[in-house]
Amino acid sequence: MDEKKLRYDINYHDNYFTTPSFGDKSQPITTESNRNYSLIDEEIALPAAVIKASLLDNNLQWMQRFANHHNVKLAPHGKTTMTPAFFRQQLENGAWGITIASPAQAQIAVLSGAKNIIMANQLVGRANMMIISQLIKHYDVDFYCCIDSKHNVEALEDFFASHEQKLNILIEMGVEGGRCGCRTEQEIMALAQHIHQSPHLNLKGIEVYEGVIHGDNAEQQVRDFLNRTIAITIQLQQEHLIQGIPLVTGAGSAWYDVVAECFNKHRELEAIIRPGCYAIHDTGIYLDAQNEVMQRAEKNQGIACNLGGDLASALELWAYVVSRPEPNKVIVGFGKRDAAFDAGLPILERAYRNGESVIFDQVKTTDVMDQHAFLSVSSDCDLQVGDVLVFSTSHPCLTFDKWRAVAVSDDNDRVTHWVKTWF
Amino acid sequence: MDEKKLRYDINYHDNYFTTPSFGDKSQPITTESNRNYSLIDEEIALPAAVIKASLLDNNLQWMQRFANHHNVKLAPHGKTTMTPAFFRQQLENGAWGITIASPAQAQIAVLSGAKNIIMANQLVGRANMMIISQLIKHYDVDFYCCIDSKHNVEALEDFFASHEQKLNILIEMGVEGGRCGCRTEQEIMALAQHIHQSPHLNLKGIEVYEGVIHGDNAEQQVRDFLNRTIAITIQLQQEHLIQGIPLVTGAGSAWYDVVAECFNKHRELEAIIRPGCYAIHDTGIYLDAQNEVMQRAEKNQGIACNLGGDLASALELWAYVVSRPEPNKVIVGFGKRDAAFDAGLPILERAYRNGESVIFDQVKTTDVMDQHAFLSVSSDCDLQVGDVLVFSTSHPCLTFDKWRAVAVSDDNDRVTHWVKTWF
Repeated sequence: MDEKKLRYDINYHDNYFTTPSFGDKSQPITTESNRNYSLIDEEIALPAAVIKASLLDNNLQWMQRFANHHNVKLAPHGKTTMTPAFFRQQLENGAWGITIASPAQAQIAVLSGAKNIIMANQLVGRANMMIISQLIKHYDVDFYCCIDSKHNVEALEDFFASHEQKLNILIEMGVEGGRCGCRTEQEIMALAQHIHQSPHLNLKGIEVYEGVIHGDNAEQQVRDFLNRTIAITIQLQQEHLIQGIPLVTGAGSAWYDVVAECFNKHRELEAIIRPGCYAIHDTGIYLDAQNEVMQRAEKNQGIACNLGGDLASALELWAYVVSRPEPNKVIVGFGKRDAAFDAGLPILERAYRNGESVIFDQVKTTDVMDQHAFLSVSSDCDLQVGDVLVFSTSHPCLTFDKWRAVAVSDDNDRVTHWVKTWF
Repeated sequence: MDEKKLRYDINYHDNYFTTPSFGDKSQPITTESNRNYSLIDEEIALPAAVIKASLLDNNLQWMQRFANHHNVKLAPHGKTTMTPAFFRQQLENGAWGITIASPAQAQIAVLSGAKNIIMANQLVGRANMMIISQLIKHYDVDFYCCIDSKHNVEALEDFFASHEQKLNILIEMGVEGGRCGCRTEQEIMALAQHIHQSPHLNLKGIEVYEGVIHGDNAEQQVRDFLNRTIAITIQLQQEHLIQGIPLVTGAGSAWYDVVAECFNKHRELEAIIRPGCYAIHDTGIYLDAQNEVMQRAEKNQGIACNLGGDLASALELWAYVVSRPEPNKVIVGFGKRDAAFDAGLPILERAYRNGESVIFDQVKTTDVMDQHAFLSVSSDCDLQVGDVLVFSTSHPCLTFDKWRAVAVSDDNDRVTHWVKTWF
């Protein structure tokens, strides 16, 4: 691995101004330097994934203000974008660290400049442990990972003992029917004792992911779960099983308000929230989640609605009409290879022809194949082959991982540069 | 674009022996050169996507034999893997060319050495046309793309006239309720006349994708559609609207047998089949499709079952048990970020602990999130945190595009090298 070159590329070169290479999607029509490229005037090969810089800025700043108001630290989940340029923006805006899901993602977060890394996941397997061991050894970073089993305690203790290193640990607490994590306080206490007897593991606190809680009474269940989390954290501290100020961390992009509010009552704890999708947002599942955040804020006199503004969907997918084979059918040149399709299909927002807007109504995205999307339209709909269509999306994570170069645009839909993703 | 370096990398370097870089998934535990890496002994960071070299070889040779027996040319759809190392293997085995879905994919196919490129899609938009124009200008390639509208004829004629180039065209014929393509012979004749009046467009033949035909009577509908395709191709030739020997092309990985059989009766046509998923195959939708191919071969005395052997699923996903939080639940360290989930979830095939097999039964993959998979197990199931699990998959296309480096293994599950994908 030529890590020095990669560190240079990530920090100083590729991610501030890069042009897609031969073979990449969304190449510009010319690689003349010092120009920018009009999407509306078709100077970029479509399909293209485009981030509007001002809306990304808005989202990053909004969530940082939210965290600051609640006296919680922000460690945005980097898995959403895996884009070092955006990680740096998050850190520059005041994020405490970056959350990631895997050792390879941790490497990118570290090279992007994060000094605090939460791997909101178990560290399993010798090769994965080796990646983290090298990161701890060669970089000045505080790395935390999760644990929920004695098997994993033993494997980690063995590995890090043999490398004469100490590993920071968070016990994951989970809910019955959920994902990972100890289900009971008894399990957590036993595991903490086990970690306490492992000289190469430092127990630092408790990690939860409340996003697996669903159902009619979800808010109350989330609050109960968080209160249990706080109680067991305090108990672990009182029994001297946690080293230093106890750390509690939770929150995806759906319940971060409730998490921040609960944690905020306990200034004796170091509280960290980890939303990820907020940076890009969407017009689907995360718009729904954010609307609920705002409704809760109104009801509870929370401050989310007093912060000014709101999150905005910063990602658009630009693509061509490639076929109008039947009066009620339009085929578009993007597919599962270009956009998330697991939480609602992309929604048509705007259309252009020869640089001018095209008016449409009652257009619905009905299906998607690997490289094509299907729109149902009225037979008098004006859309025709060659028209440029602009879609909003749902679930940004699964759109981002389809792209190696994401275009960044100004408010006039001109691409100023591309950023590289590292999935 | 440093195209010379890229051409070197693609052809001589990266794709025969590459090691995943810092930040890539599936990094080996050490980058010592001249060694290979045991998956079972956990020398690779998991999750990893692994191709068994002997099974890939088997599949490539099997389909080439199939095409040879039917006197049809093979232009494998490259979108499945977008892996130059595998494109080259397909070409070395006798493939006539490579099929792709987009201009960026065409660039990679050309740099991989393909001299015949079918873009089984419409070429829409100035920047996309520019990519193809540059390919035609700088490389000795025959490029073909599809057309199904007068709008597209006019746009392509304008662009290629201004660049003083000629573009090879296939008219796409489609079916009512399907995807792209002219629905009637009348539309095709009118479009062919229009192309004939466009001096920079050469009509070379007809393209179909029969894979959109479904239902109880699908086989007969596919045959009827192919017979219509052949009839209109011959009519276009008779009316001197096609230049040279007419080309007919069809076939995904589900109906390639029927397509080859129908085309084989017309030696006056240049027939090309374009299956893609066959190279990797699976234990899901393409296994089902191949079983139907074999059943048809028995019924029709076709030769598929006399070729010797059959396709085999060449792709495995290796991942760790990361949590066993409830007696009936195992959480595995892969997710939507690592494997296709749109056509059935990955199926557990084998398990290892400390280099030895672990026995299990009645394990079912029930759900998948971005970075986690859920297994339902019996409460006495032996699987525990740290166990290495090996899954087969369904729909290889959507697993491949999640990986930048795919591991290639020998028959002892030792990784000999990695190949790079170019999505």
